[in-house]
Amino acid sequence: MAVDHIPTGIPGVDNILAEKGIPRGHTILVSGGPGSGKTTFAMQFLHTGATQHNESGVYVTLDEEPSDIRRNMLKYGWDLKKLEDEKKLVFINISPVRVAPSETAGLIQIGMKEFRLIKLLEAIKQGVKEVDAKRVVVDPVTIFTLQYPDEVERIYAMRDLMRELRKTRCTNLLISELRGTGWEREHQFEEYLAQGVILLRTFLKGSRLVRVFQVEKMRGLAIDNQPRPYEISDKGIEVYPGATVYK
Amino acid sequence: MAVDHIPTGIPGVDNILAEKGIPRGHTILVSGGPGSGKTTFAMQFLHTGATQHNESGVYVTLDEEPSDIRRNMLKYGWDLKKLEDEKKLVFINISPVRVAPSETAGLIQIGMKEFRLIKLLEAIKQGVKEVDAKRVVVDPVTIFTLQYPDEVERIYAMRDLMRELRKTRCTNLLISELRGTGWEREHQFEEYLAQGVILLRTFLKGSRLVRVFQVEKMRGLAIDNQPRPYEISDKGIEVYPGATVYK
Amino acid sequence: MAVDHIPTGIPGVDNILAEKGIPRGHTILVSGGPGSGKTTFAMQFLHTGATQHNESGVYVTLDEEPSDIRRNMLKYGWDLKKLEDEKKLVFINISPVRVAPSETAGLIQIGMKEFRLIKLLEAIKQGVKEVDAKRVVVDPVTIFTLQYPDEVERIYAMRDLMRELRKTRCTNLLISELRGTGWEREHQFEEYLAQGVILLRTFLKGSRLVRVFQVEKMRGLAIDNQPRPYEISDKGIEVYPGATVYK
Amino acid sequence: MAVDHIPTGIPGVDNILAEKGIPRGHTILVSGGPGSGKTTFAMQFLHTGATQHNESGVYVTLDEEPSDIRRNMLKYGWDLKKLEDEKKLVFINISPVRVAPSETAGLIQIGMKEFRLIKLLEAIKQGVKEVDAKRVVVDPVTIFTLQYPDEVERIYAMRDLMRELRKTRCTNLLISELRGTGWEREHQFEEYLAQGVILLRTFLKGSRLVRVFQVEKMRGLAIDNQPRPYEISDKGIEVYPGATVYK
Amino acid sequence: MAVDHIPTGIPGVDNILAEKGIPRGHTILVSGGPGSGKTTFAMQFLHTGATQHNESGVYVTLDEEPSDIRRNMLKYGWDLKKLEDEKKLVFINISPVRVAPSETAGLIQIGMKEFRLIKLLEAIKQGVKEVDAKRVVVDPVTIFTLQYPDEVERIYAMRDLMRELRKTRCTNLLISELRGTGWEREHQFEEYLAQGVILLRTFLKGSRLVRVFQVEKMRGLAIDNQPRPYEISDKGIEVYPGATVYK
Amino acid sequence: MAVDHIPTGIPGVDNILAEKGIPRGHTILVSGGPGSGKTTFAMQFLHTGATQHNESGVYVTLDEEPSDIRRNMLKYGWDLKKLEDEKKLVFINISPVRVAPSETAGLIQIGMKEFRLIKLLEAIKQGVKEVDAKRVVVDPVTIFTLQYPDEVERIYAMRDLMRELRKTRCTNLLISELRGTGWEREHQFEEYLAQGVILLRTFLKGSRLVRVFQVEKMRGLAIDNQPRPYEISDKGIEVYPGATVYK
Repeated sequence: MAVDHIPTGIPGVDNILAEKGIPRGHTILVSGGPGSGKTTFAMQFLHTGATQHNESGVYVTLDEEPSDIRRNMLKYGWDLKKLEDEKKLVFINISPVRVAPSETAGLIQIGMKEFRLIKLLEAIKQGVKEVDAKRVVVDPVTIFTLQYPDEVERIYAMRDLMRELRKTRCTNLLISELRGTGWEREHQFEEYLAQGVILLRTFLKGSRLVRVFQVEKMRGLAIDNQPRPYEISDKGIEVYPGATVYK
Repeated sequence: MAVDHIPTGIPGVDNILAEKGIPRGHTILVSGGPGSGKTTFAMQFLHTGATQHNESGVYVTLDEEPSDIRRNMLKYGWDLKKLEDEKKLVFINISPVRVAPSETAGLIQIGMKEFRLIKLLEAIKQGVKEVDAKRVVVDPVTIFTLQYPDEVERIYAMRDLMRELRKTRCTNLLISELRGTGWEREHQFEEYLAQGVILLRTFLKGSRLVRVFQVEKMRGLAIDNQPRPYEISDKGIEVYPGATVYK
Repeated sequence: MAVDHIPTGIPGVDNILAEKGIPRGHTILVSGGPGSGKTTFAMQFLHTGATQHNESGVYVTLDEEPSDIRRNMLKYGWDLKKLEDEKKLVFINISPVRVAPSETAGLIQIGMKEFRLIKLLEAIKQGVKEVDAKRVVVDPVTIFTLQYPDEVERIYAMRDLMRELRKTRCTNLLISELRGTGWEREHQFEEYLAQGVILLRTFLKGSRLVRVFQVEKMRGLAIDNQPRPYEISDKGIEVYPGATVYK
Repeated sequence: MAVDHIPTGIPGVDNILAEKGIPRGHTILVSGGPGSGKTTFAMQFLHTGATQHNESGVYVTLDEEPSDIRRNMLKYGWDLKKLEDEKKLVFINISPVRVAPSETAGLIQIGMKEFRLIKLLEAIKQGVKEVDAKRVVVDPVTIFTLQYPDEVERIYAMRDLMRELRKTRCTNLLISELRGTGWEREHQFEEYLAQGVILLRTFLKGSRLVRVFQVEKMRGLAIDNQPRPYEISDKGIEVYPGATVYK
Repeated sequence: MAVDHIPTGIPGVDNILAEKGIPRGHTILVSGGPGSGKTTFAMQFLHTGATQHNESGVYVTLDEEPSDIRRNMLKYGWDLKKLEDEKKLVFINISPVRVAPSETAGLIQIGMKEFRLIKLLEAIKQGVKEVDAKRVVVDPVTIFTLQYPDEVERIYAMRDLMRELRKTRCTNLLISELRGTGWEREHQFEEYLAQGVILLRTFLKGSRLVRVFQVEKMRGLAIDNQPRPYEISDKGIEVYPGATVYK
Repeated sequence: MAVDHIPTGIPGVDNILAEKGIPRGHTILVSGGPGSGKTTFAMQFLHTGATQHNESGVYVTLDEEPSDIRRNMLKYGWDLKKLEDEKKLVFINISPVRVAPSETAGLIQIGMKEFRLIKLLEAIKQGVKEVDAKRVVVDPVTIFTLQYPDEVERIYAMRDLMRELRKTRCTNLLISELRGTGWEREHQFEEYLAQGVILLRTFLKGSRLVRVFQVEKMRGLAIDNQPRPYEISDKGIEVYPGATVYK
């Protein structure tokens, strides 16, 4: 019953996570604004797993095309195609609407009704099986939750997703889109349901915007919950665990 | 008719509660954000009761699996399994939806309708009887109240829950999820209904986040209502009753 | 046609009320947050009336049980049971729902429809007659107004309540729950309808929370409308009329 | 076609109104919070008119009872009964609901439907005729506008009220209840429709609340639109036209 | 295809408009709070056009009576009646409801349905033809847009109004009522549709309110978009193009 | 699979975009307030493409008339007519309503239903084919998204638009209207869907408004995400990549 942890491999992050990493099998929410590096963070997690820890990964994309992600990640020197060929990474592309726009009007409705929890879970499970994955990313989970306009239904759907992900025994990152931009935002219900919450935000410090990394929550781990600066360079994301955000 | 109090046993908290503790039989709202240590606080209350005051406890979980809680609490050195074996602790797991996701669509609806006050109360009473409990935790009560979209109905349901809990003669903690993150939040109706309110929050002090404990309300007790810093270490929660939050 | 006043007897309050008290027969709104001492304030008003001015009182409770109030007030040394025996105080307990929870689902609806202005007024009048009361408290009036979802209906219901209370010739305190917590809150319609408004609030002053008493309005009286600090000690509420809230 | 003005007689106010007063025949909105002295301001306007300028007045009350107003104004030494006997003042009491509460439930609905623009206008015209009035007060106009839930209908109703008031050739004050409490409130549509707007507000200045008078708008007059302090003493309202609110 | 400009003639304004004025044929939104001088600004534009540039004007009023405007403008020494007699100015009074209040209830509804874009445009065109106008004012356009509760319909109606105004080849000012009072207000859709936007606002500077003029937008012209102080004196509006709002 | 970039040619912008420009084929959101120079920015992008890089452009206008845009751009010395004659630029004018206002009432409804994704895409594709375009601008995309009142439908419609634009292999700017004016605005869903986001905003710095350019996001490129001052002169937009917004 001892807790096992898997290192994220992202510079600075495991230091913050009690020098350990994410508790194995947990589902972590990674929430950030546009341009905050959410996809980079998630792919860095899978790439490190595949190249340094021999753990395969599943990348479920609900928005960007896999070809775009492959190309964009080249700037970090990550050759995803190679990982896919080696069965260390698999893309699951389940963006709900795929039909030609000239037929869209009616089909959007159908697509929306069919695109549901079951379909999402079946796709994930198939991906996990295909590469014997230990790590899963769903990017973004926001478009999934928006399908449930009733708040209670939305909470139940997210709970079910998390419970089923748990059965895969993988460690999972759910990417989420932040709406509010200030410190005094409202908490979102997903933050309560997830076993861990990582925030990627941007705040104004005098004349400069500073990128701010924060582990808001990580069940089962004594974490550093302080806001820490991070940067996105040509090696991906790097967090500075000893630095403070404001002087 | 003299008032009896039960110590929480959480370092610093009873000092704030007039050196006494929580009035026996009262129902207290413990409200905090994600990662604020709400579950740790509640379990520390039950663990201390069971190991130091010979008072058994019931832990009603509406969200996390008991197995997860057992494992997460190990980091504080709390062996819950042992307490359960000694009949000093019992978990009541009444998370509303339990069915396999492939059958979910229809069953969520049914599950939601069935999951109501009566079911919750029956489960609590059974747990109390099983271990002759003196302390009860419901974590989180938020998912219960969300089921009542009409505000007046929600208030009535919460009142009924509190009245019935009172009949068990146990001392109860209802865990609640905070939405607003600033000092100038709106008060929630639960804060008026509960006999006591404890807030676990986080505020920015210069470059650092500070965890802030506050007893907002405690009927029948002359309390210190000032905000006080607290920490979550490998021994659980510790509050610093003499310290101020800002220098 | 000269105006008569009745002293509240609460230390510091009558000084603020032009050294007089509340105009006899007026209906005053006492509005505050959780833990602000609203119930203590109201009971102190009745207790002083009964023990020092030979004026009996009616305490209408829509939320707390009389037995809880009796017990909680013991910490101030107020023996309510004795006052009740002497016919100087009577509790009217008209909390809308009273049925056992196992029968609740349907009955809440019925209870809510029946629980209306008329029932509330009849109960008050009976209580006034029973002890020949000069002072009345309704605690809290919030749950009464919430029953009218339409804003205009709510205003009319509150107006009718106030007009009828006036006919009893008693001096009345209506306890109200504040939602907003900052200085720049919205005014509530009750504040316009009542003949006086007393606010019990809490504000942050540097590192400390300060309890702030303010008479926002008192028709027919030249008042001090400045915010003044107050405390809740083992003698009840004490307001400091000469002190300022911030240095 | 020269513009005639009538002095308000309220100390300090006419200085701000270009040393003249309110343009004769205009309709002015007087908007303030609870306890801001709206009724005192309005009655001081009528009292001065009746006692110093030989202009009779009509006081339309939609909320307070005339007997209460008469009594409350005694503290300023204003003997309204005497003015009424001399036909220099008349109260029009058209508070919409007047029936006994035991019959209220159904009658509120009827009362609300009947209470409309026409009834209000007929009452005003009758009052004007009765005392040959030159000044009219409607206190508060808020309860009248709330009856029109649709925003456009509400604007039209207010426009019609103002147009008809104009035909009486009286100078009119419409009392309005402010909701927002900060400097950065939303403007209300009434402020655009009225020919003048006077604001009675309260702001925090260091440790003190300061009463702030401001003429936001006065068509046809070169006004001082600066915020100015005012006080409510035993002589009524006094504004300090040369003083600044802060420092 | 060279751009022609017409001077506003308002002191300071043309300096800000690249020493030129408003591009001929453009439609400009003039948005301000109550008492900000919107009507004065608009009439000053027409008066200058008529007396100094031999350009006649049409003043469409949806709220104030022409007789009131004529009288109020006398304080600036502007004799509108004279301009009307010389066919240099014409008032179009199309305030939607005109019927006697005793018949209002039903007629408001009809009035509102009939009062539409077509009627407004026909009236404008007729006025333009009558005095061979080069300048048009619609004051306020807000009451026109409020008639379309659906946001998209409202945008379309405003677009149509602007397109048709364009066909008259006049230069047009649409007067609009500001709701928000702070710097950080929401932009309104009209600001995007108009070819130019002029804001007349009031901000607190220490202890004083300062009137602030700003050209937010002026298509086809290199403008000074800085906030500049302005005043309303007995000569009308004067803007200080070289001054800054805060020291 | 190497990433190709196209320079914007706007002074300062390509320095911020890693000295490269926009990744070829990407769709970029350009979001700004009224008067922020959105149209100037977009046309500068097309003009530079046509005159310096031999890349033709399509300008889809949903609001302004092409003739207005041609005239307004003359102030920068850009002769669009010449570019159109050389087949280096084509305007697509698909503003939804075009009918005479006298027939508008019914036709708006029809126009709105017909104006949909398909029509928009067909027009764009035809324009691209006509001049063999490499660059496309849609100005503004806001009026397109407003047609979908349901949030999920709106997201799907925007996704479909972006996917289809991608097939043209052009580099695209979608112009979007900002509502909020402060730093702490809510993020809009379009910012998550677009491959890049450029913000054109205005903030108050002491007594002056400063125009602020920011690349919030640019997939596949290591950008400078800092806010930078920009100006609109008679040469169009110029950004100052080395300068900071506040001293």
